[in-house]
Parts: sequence; structure tokens; C-alpha cells
Amino acid sequence: MKSVEHPSSRRSVLKLLTMAVVTLPSVAWGVVKPLLPSGKTRARFIEHNQRPLALETARDAYGQGPITPISHFFVRNNLPMPQSTLVANPDAWTVQVKGCQSEGGITLADLKLLPTTTVAAVLQCSGNGRAFFDHKPSGSPWSVGAAGCALWTGVRVADVLAQFGGANNDASFLTGTGGEMLPEGIDPQTVAVERSVPLDKGLDDCLLVWEMNGEPLPLVHGGPVRLLVPGYFGVNNVKWLRTLAATMKESSNKIQQSGYRLRPVGKSGNVSHPSMYRMPVKSWVNSPGADGQPIPPGRHRIFGVAFAGERGIESVEVSLDGGSNWRQAMLYGPDLGANAWRTFSLDTELDNGEYLLVSRATDKTGAQQPADFPANQRGYGHNGWRDHGLSVAVSDNTLAEARLGESNSGVARLTATETVATGAGATYTAKEAKPRHSEHASLGRQLFNHATQPSCATCHSLDAAGAKGVIGPKLDKLKPDAQRIRAALAQGVGAMPSYAEQLSDNEVSALVDFITQGR
Amino acid sequence: MKSVEHPSSRRSVLKLLTMAVVTLPSVAWGVVKPLLPSGKTRARFIEHNQRPLALETARDAYGQGPITPISHFFVRNNLPMPQSTLVANPDAWTVQVKGCQSEGGITLADLKLLPTTTVAAVLQCSGNGRAFFDHKPSGSPWSVGAAGCALWTGVRVADVLAQFGGANNDASFLTGTGGEMLPEGIDPQTVAVERSVPLDKGLDDCLLVWEMNGEPLPLVHGGPVRLLVPGYFGVNNVKWLRTLAATMKESSNKIQQSGYRLRPVGKSGNVSHPSMYRMPVKSWVNSPGADGQPIPPGRHRIFGVAFAGERGIESVEVSLDGGSNWRQAMLYGPDLGANAWRTFSLDTELDNGEYLLVSRATDKTGAQQPADFPANQRGYGHNGWRDHGLSVAVSDNTLAEARLGESNSGVARLTATETVATGAGATYTAKEAKPRHSEHASLGRQLFNHATQPSCATCHSLDAAGAKGVIGPKLDKLKPDAQRIRAALAQGVGAMPSYAEQLSDNEVSALVDFITQGR
Repeated sequence: MKSVEHPSSRRSVLKLLTMAVVTLPSVAWGVVKPLLPSGKTRARFIEHNQRPLALETARDAYGQGPITPISHFFVRNNLPMPQSTLVANPDAWTVQVKGCQSEGGITLADLKLLPTTTVAAVLQCSGNGRAFFDHKPSGSPWSVGAAGCALWTGVRVADVLAQFGGANNDASFLTGTGGEMLPEGIDPQTVAVERSVPLDKGLDDCLLVWEMNGEPLPLVHGGPVRLLVPGYFGVNNVKWLRTLAATMKESSNKIQQSGYRLRPVGKSGNVSHPSMYRMPVKSWVNSPGADGQPIPPGRHRIFGVAFAGERGIESVEVSLDGGSNWRQAMLYGPDLGANAWRTFSLDTELDNGEYLLVSRATDKTGAQQPADFPANQRGYGHNGWRDHGLSVAVSDNTLAEARLGESNSGVARLTATETVATGAGATYTAKEAKPRHSEHASLGRQLFNHATQPSCATCHSLDAAGAKGVIGPKLDKLKPDAQRIRAALAQGVGAMPSYAEQLSDNEVSALVDFITQGR
Repeated sequence: MKSVEHPSSRRSVLKLLTMAVVTLPSVAWGVVKPLLPSGKTRARFIEHNQRPLALETARDAYGQGPITPISHFFVRNNLPMPQSTLVANPDAWTVQVKGCQSEGGITLADLKLLPTTTVAAVLQCSGNGRAFFDHKPSGSPWSVGAAGCALWTGVRVADVLAQFGGANNDASFLTGTGGEMLPEGIDPQTVAVERSVPLDKGLDDCLLVWEMNGEPLPLVHGGPVRLLVPGYFGVNNVKWLRTLAATMKESSNKIQQSGYRLRPVGKSGNVSHPSMYRMPVKSWVNSPGADGQPIPPGRHRIFGVAFAGERGIESVEVSLDGGSNWRQAMLYGPDLGANAWRTFSLDTELDNGEYLLVSRATDKTGAQQPADFPANQRGYGHNGWRDHGLSVAVSDNTLAEARLGESNSGVARLTATETVATGAGATYTAKEAKPRHSEHASLGRQLFNHATQPSCATCHSLDAAGAKGVIGPKLDKLKPDAQRIRAALAQGVGAMPSYAEQLSDNEVSALVDFITQGR
């Protein structure tokens, strides 16, 4: 790298910046994690694997609405994603259609000429809940977060096949082949993602989709075009769809023949074992207390989600004591269809103590979520309500913290001191807290714990803040100086995003002073 | 600024970067626009104003689904937004409730203890369509894009007021006061956003919302808490809600008394003029051809949106000839309720020529969108179908371009040359295009026009690419060298985002070579 001297002009600054930035990627930085795609930030996810990417939505990152935003949506890839060159021109993406009266390719541009529709559907990894099995099956130990509900826009498979004269008469399956990058030197049949579902299902409600929650389907979620098999486990919803075929038999690939089968522990998979198709009824509680912090006693509203592939949800019960006593929860918000999830809530009062919040859903055919789910070799399909319970500690001791605005539990009932001019010209003061430090330091502390998305505390530990984040460096150990903190806030570093948009100069100063206090 | 010499070590590079980045904001850069909030990128918007922010969704940025993502959602602020310090701890945000049996503050944390619900609703600025009036009313000249449809999660106003014993018996209005920053030295009554709607409406279906499309309500859209008045024009949906009052009279503020009234051109506003309340039936076409580029002759699918405040959509007709002949469009996707918009489409064949694509919606009470809308002083409420028409040129000449993958129209029917391994181990070749340049240059051109989001061509003009973007510098004039291009791609510059996530090293090289070709 060239040396740079006396960057006193604007142009020099630009050049300086240019060189520094361009040089960075080639510098050995040690542990610098790559940015996550599509606006996802690490604070919202548990990262099980980098390549292929496996991101689980953190339980406390689910909101109260029925749609999971892309920025919060889990990722499970079987193989590394295709290179972006392959998706450079989305409308030119071509799906080969086979097993019909005629065969050929159809571009996304031409798919958009067929009747369009939008459906809401849950995607859930077959291994969601694997963490709850005692026998420690191999694979990512997903707990509840390998699932999300989105709006998908595309065309019906039936309309696509009709463009080619319809499926051959002897066809029984719809087989989709993905566009994953295949490792060299390995028989593609053993690794390639190619899945078959019953043709009747394919013609009934399956779609080729190019839009997710109103955005062009991101590469990481299978864009430009993926197969949507509403109500079926994720693996069937083939990403980067390259071939769509009406076939006599199921794919001969391993992922179909022996993979993704519900089989006894210790047994090899084969076609006699049930394939991971329709998702049975399932539900879980997402709040309060999903961040692992104690919550104060008093009134709380319990929130969760419930779904049942192809069937929809009839009702949900909630128990505060791990299943001894049940109460009917309220289903709220729109019913987005039989393959979407329903949001539910329950108003309750919690005294000091330990609680196991569990939910038990019943689908519209009357099938009820079981208490337990049998162990199986790969840890698939867990929908037992007991293991999905959320343990919550309710304690008076959290109240003092909450008063200082330091609780993440959503029950901080007193506000920070603030004076606001109302529209009518009147001025009022909200209830006053009793800050422990100077106002500036108190602001710094509040900013550290709450101000930004994600907050500093989400990723970093810092004793002065009572913060215990484990994603980023421990700040008491790293002891960054003011300049380093300012740089990181201004431009991000490694996995840490830039906070330039979120913080004023004043706020940056308060944060810097708070983090460096006493040094 | 200090001089920096010989940054040869990793630490020096970090320091260099640190200083450069931290110094940047204080350097006079000339025209460097600030980043947009909430993942919004300039390519998707027409920017009418910076402070207060006014962003119109570009017509070709609407997708085919019924929900507008936050990243595409328009912004119209009457005053600068509150500082982020005020929203540092969302759950502590306090709404003062007045005009009830008791009065007091309620925090967002406590709002979340009340019955939660989610509704889909269109937000539309009163001035949407203002650009179509001939008398050039003052205010931002919105065309179609000051509108979006989102899922909003919150609690019913009725349930909030019930916490305070319910509205006083003599109350007739629900009055919300926003938390905007008020300019000093001006009577707040003349500028503050405080709006009143009939109390019956407030109790019927209005909400206090904290979530938008599954994400915590962003500051720019009124978070932590805004008032949602489903089916009413945007101004009533008070952002950063500070006070919610059941009142005997409408707010005495200017924005209620004389502002946002439908009044004859040249007349001052007063309470005798209709307030901008319920949104009448309206629709428009969003594609094809909304980017202003000609489209090739042949089959096309026309897409658009239709809505009617509180009433829902019964049907939509589309005309290709500016309203002489009409055909019934198909409503597709889920009906998300009476205040959401419906997506519609029409399959058609277009020969060479000029077309004016117009749509005419009918709501569920039978009211039909009018052909024209009368001029009014502030250019409010335009829902006339004629002015909302989309002019499209259909021309054979675009076909050659489309063959090279250069069309933005969504009808590029031939794909780029590519060889892909299928899952079953077979290899097939998609239809071959005839590249005009070398493969590398062709890749560069394709990347320039299509690869990224937003594409280079969206913002920049470059003759070699046939690109005519006007948002960023003209590249034939700027003639950036390779280093400058690489720096901009790696880290963004001014309004331009970083493309580090989207492009491989190879792709960056192809882009650089393409942009600098012949120099």
C-alpha cells in the first residue's frame, strides 16, 4: 500500500478514505464476520452456521404482527447460495419445465404474464425444535426460530404447467430442482436439492414466487424464483428454482430418498419412512421474558404464534404452569389463510415466582398439538408443546431496574425525565425517574441499553450498563478509546453496523463518555 | 485535521480509516445527501423535500403484492421528526390521555397489555395526485406514490380510553397531538400537528400502533406510537402521538381549522369546507412501462392497486386507450379488509403504438372512481382516473435491447448465455443471446443495468449502457477512474450505498472495466 501524506484537501480526504476502504478487505482482520444479507442484523438471530448460512430468529425478535419481516426471517440453506451473477437479471431467470406435453424454459418475465396471486404461508425448517430432543441429533440445534410467516407473490404451478400443455398423464409427483452451487467432485445426486411432492398438491396450491412481503424475493430466500409448497416443511420449497418437472417417481436424489424422512433413532432413512411434507399443528409463546431476563410481577400479556399446514388454527390454550392448568387465548389480527400463522395473546397477572409458559393449539380439523414428540434420528418435526415452553422468572427485584429504564422486558412503567411541547402550546412533564448518575451519563447508559437497533447491550457486555451481550467484544476487556468508539459508531466495524443514521452528535458523545467512564 | 503518514501496519490502517470516516461529516463535501432512514434507497423514491422529509414511492417501485414494504413506503412529515433521544426507550414512550373520566399517561409498555390487534390499511397523503392539477397548487407535487398499504399492529383507541373510564359524555371528537419538533418563536397553534376526527370513528376502528409490517414502527413513520385512522387521509394518522383526547370540539390548531380542507381555488380554508377525512375510491396502474421506457409489442400483464377508505373494492376496469374502451380486471391476492388496497391485473396484447393505461375502481357501496376531480386550492384528494393514466410507448425497437437483457420492462424474453448444473447432475444450456461485446464487457453492461439493487443505471447516466439515470453524477461527464469506482462500490459515497454485499470481486472488475472502457 502506498503511503499517504498530509491529506489536507477534500480530494485528499476522499483519496484517503478510498484507499483505506479498498484496502481493508485484503487486510487480515482476525475475527471479522461478514455482514448478513437483506437487512438482517446479528442481534435478531442465533447464527448456527455461516456457509451454508443458518440463521435462527431469536425468540424475542418476533413481534406481535402476523408477518415476519425479511429482516427478521430465518435462513436455512443446504448448500452455498448461487453467485449473484446468476441472478443479475432477475427477469431473465429461466425455469426449465419438464414432464409436460411440451418442454422448455420459461423466464421470470414470462411468469409475470401468467395470473398472479399472493398467499400468506409459514416456512418452517424440518429441524425446527431439534434443540429440544434429548438424543442430540446432528444438524443445527434450532429451538423455535427456524420459522416465519410471509406474504408470497407469484403464479400457480398449475398455470405454469398449463403453458406446456399440462403434466403428462403418468405423472404423480411435482419435482423441483434448486440452483445451489454444487461442490466439485461429489455425485450431485448425493447433495443436490431436488424435492418431489405429490402432483395433486403441486397443482392444487403450489406457486412459483418472486416477491416476499412486497420486496423482490432476495437471493438468500431463493430469489429470483422459488417454489412455494404452502403448509409443507421448508425443504420442499425449493430455492433458486431451475427445473420444475412433472415426474412419475420421486426424485432419486438422497435428499428425497433417505433424507428428510421421519425415522427411528439409529435407523437409516428410506422411502418407507414418512417424508417431511405437511406441517402438523404447532404453537409457542414468544413473550414476555424471551430474552432470558426476569420480569416484574404484575399484569402481563402473553404473545405467541400458532399454525397448522393446510388447515389453519381453530383455537389456542395457554398454561402458566407447564401444562397443569389451561386458559383459552385470544386469536387476534387477520386470519391470513390456512397456511399462515395466527397470533394469539392472553392477559394475565403474574406474582413472584418461576413460570413455564406453554401453549397448545388445535387446528380446524380438531387435531391438537401433542404434549411430546417422539425422538427421531434427525430431530425433525418437533411440535410437542411441553418442550416449547418458555421459562420466565418473575421477580420484584427487576422493578428497580425497570424504573431506571434498563429493563428489556417491555414493562418499564416509568419514563425517563423529558419535557415536551404539546401541539396546543402547553408543556407537560412526564413522570420523573431518579437518575443514578449525572444526566449525561444517564443518557449514555440509556442509549447503550435501548437507543439503537440493535442496542449496544444486545451484542456487548459492559458492567457499568449491566449489559451482558455475548455477540461482540466485551467492552470492559477491550477498553476501546473514544476515537475507536466513534469510528465504530460512524462506520461500523466487522459485524457491527454503522449507527450514523441513528445517533446525533450529542448522543454519540454521551455514549462515548459513558463507555469510557473512569478510564 | 492531522496529517497521516506511512500507514503500513494494520493498526495504522484502522486509525487512518477511523480518522477519515470520523472527519468526513465535518468536511464540506458539496452535494452529499444524507442517507434515507429505514432501509429506504433513493432509487425507489422521488425526493420532494429533505427537512421535513417528503419521499414519494416511484411508480415502478411498487411490486405485485398487497403490502408496501417499509423500504418502499412513502414519507410525508409536516415538521422535522423528534430527536431519537425521545424514542430511545420505546416502551417508556408515554401518551397522555385526556377528556375521559380520569386522565393520565399510558406508556407503550402498558399499551401492550391491552388487547392487541393487526389491521391492513392504506396510508395516503391528502396531496397525493397534486401533480395532476393544472393550477399548480403549492406543496409537494406528488403523483401516485404518496400512498402505501401496510399491516399495523396495536390496540384499539376504545380500549385505551376505557382504561381511563371512557370518553366524557360531552365529547364529540378524538383529538391526537403529535410529537414533532416545533420551531421556536412561532405560535404552536399555527404549526403543530394536532388533528381531530369524529369520536364515533375513533371508538369504532382507530388504533394506537407500534408495529408496521412486523417491525417496530420506525421513527420516520411515527414510532414508537402513532394514531391509525383506517381509511382516512394520512394527516389524521398522527405520528409520535403525545396526547390522545376526547374533546367537545375540533382542535383549534390551524392544521384542523383551515388546513387540510377541500376548498375552492383562491379561497381561504375554514370549517365550512370539508376536512380531509375518508379517502374516496381510487386506483391506478403501476406497470408495465412505469419507468418511462418503451416496452416491446406482445403479451403484457397490467398491474395496479385500488382502494376505498372504509369500503373496500368491488371491481376494477382497465382501459388501454385512455378510457374509450374498458375491460374487467382481475382482483388477485388476499382481501386484507375494507381499508387495505386490492391488487389487480389484466392480461393483454399490445401492438406497436402509444397507450394510455387507466383504471377505474368501484367500491363496495357502488361508488365509482370519477373521470376527473375538481381543482381545489391545495390540490387535495385527486382520484380522477384520467389524470392517473400511465402513458406507455410500445415499440419493436425495444426488442433488440430486450434480447441483450437490457430492458427494464420485465419482458426480456431471452436469457443471457449461462450453463448451469442441475440437481440431477445433468447440464443444460439456456437459450443463447448474441452478445454485442466481449463476454466480460457484456457482463459489465448487464451488471450496470440490472445486477444490483438499486442498479447503477437507476441513478447514473452512461451512454455505453444506454442508461439515463438522473439521480447521481453523469458518468460520461464525471469519468471516474477505476480506483474511484471501486471505492464507491466498496463503501458507498454520499447518497450511493455500498455494494460490497452484492458484488463479487469478478463482478466489480467487470463493472469497472465496462465503465472505464475506452478511456
